[in-house]
Amino acid sequence: MQNNKKESEKHELMVEGRNPVLEALKTNDNIDKLYVQEGVKDGPLVTIVAKAKEKNVMVIPVPKEKLDAMSDTGHHQGAILNLSAIQYAEVEDILARAEERGEKPFIFVLDGIEDPHNLGAIIRSANLAGAHGVIIPKHRAATVNATVAKASAGAVYHTLVAKVTNIAQTIDQLKEKGIWFACADMGGEEMYRCNMTGAIGLVIGNEGNGVSRLVREKCDFVVSIPMKGDIDSLNASVAAGILAWEVVRQNRMK
Amino acid sequence: MQNNKKESEKHELMVEGRNPVLEALKTNDNIDKLYVQEGVKDGPLVTIVAKAKEKNVMVIPVPKEKLDAMSDTGHHQGAILNLSAIQYAEVEDILARAEERGEKPFIFVLDGIEDPHNLGAIIRSANLAGAHGVIIPKHRAATVNATVAKASAGAVYHTLVAKVTNIAQTIDQLKEKGIWFACADMGGEEMYRCNMTGAIGLVIGNEGNGVSRLVREKCDFVVSIPMKGDIDSLNASVAAGILAWEVVRQNRMK
Repeated sequence: MQNNKKESEKHELMVEGRNPVLEALKTNDNIDKLYVQEGVKDGPLVTIVAKAKEKNVMVIPVPKEKLDAMSDTGHHQGAILNLSAIQYAEVEDILARAEERGEKPFIFVLDGIEDPHNLGAIIRSANLAGAHGVIIPKHRAATVNATVAKASAGAVYHTLVAKVTNIAQTIDQLKEKGIWFACADMGGEEMYRCNMTGAIGLVIGNEGNGVSRLVREKCDFVVSIPMKGDIDSLNASVAAGILAWEVVRQNRMK
Repeated sequence: MQNNKKESEKHELMVEGRNPVLEALKTNDNIDKLYVQEGVKDGPLVTIVAKAKEKNVMVIPVPKEKLDAMSDTGHHQGAILNLSAIQYAEVEDILARAEERGEKPFIFVLDGIEDPHNLGAIIRSANLAGAHGVIIPKHRAATVNATVAKASAGAVYHTLVAKVTNIAQTIDQLKEKGIWFACADMGGEEMYRCNMTGAIGLVIGNEGNGVSRLVREKCDFVVSIPMKGDIDSLNASVAAGILAWEVVRQNRMK
């Protein structure tokens, strides 16, 4: 089995070619995305796509030229697989870790962080703030590749990261388990006046657009960082860090 | 006069060629660095180097191949100048801004931040925390180029940034004016127990090595962010943000 795990330009781990891709789909659990050549529908590729769907791997059809550009070997045969740098956890694993530690759940929920450096820095902060895990969306967001792993200073290997299809639904399920959700956004209650000492999910939005309307509506309250100055907003990973340490402070002071 | 201000790969503003470089040296005040071809010592280049030294511009001799690679036009004639994205301020301007606002000085001192994204994010945080300015070193550190300006979300255009030759000396001078310096480092006093409500300089170190020994020794105290977790340290811009908002919190609570 030929297993091309060379770092691509985007620092993602890739597997190329039909047999390697099918093998990886059968044996690996840390698969990020499958790119297949648009319009190709022969037997082996149909088998690969079926296996990917069975394992809940996102399948992205792209033109041959894009696969050629992504390919390290020049022999992708219409199929390139991205492996993630980590094994993703389940949301339940995050709750179990809180229970193991005898602590109330403290979870980061990232609603569409796109920049891998921000994602890495936030996972790093989550680890050091003592959070039990990080929830990220499957679509339209950065996933844990090698760039994220590096920016996290290795925190991705110690921190539970769960990837979910629908952030709003996940929040609903966790609210039933007694977790309160704080939406980080402007125009909310100043963080010093919010009680964040219980079981808490800290929701951080996209770099440009903030938290999406649907997710924001699911949250129990909106929390803001007091700001002066001439510009609009903090860097997303800095804002996440400031809010996380407000949770830390409140828990120590209570 | 041909003035090549095209963005290079590194997103810096460049001026190339002997006449344009000499003109820029005579008329611009926001000059970052001068690159000159190693071994070339003819009249025009000697004039350029002398003018640069007169204006305190750092002069970096490099091999011809490096200049060729940097050049956008292919006609650098042995001289390439980097312009910074901003006009740097003086340390005195930062003190004057505090006085204008009727506030005690709140200054960020960056002892060797190398990553332009971190520098940009920190200037962004400094602006929004209501700090009066940011001090960076002339050497061995990121300077304010277009990447930094972008990462700062435009905060570089509103925030006073002073570039100094010797951070330790600058701290000495500012201590004489009654400013206290808090060195951000591990093994210090927990931030909640440090009084940071007066005139304060927050000293943030290099991403890999932290604050240098000499600068650390000049500081009045060492302040730490309480951390759990499995890794060593926070991202530098996240740490700077958390400490800055501890200053904000203490000032609001006092």
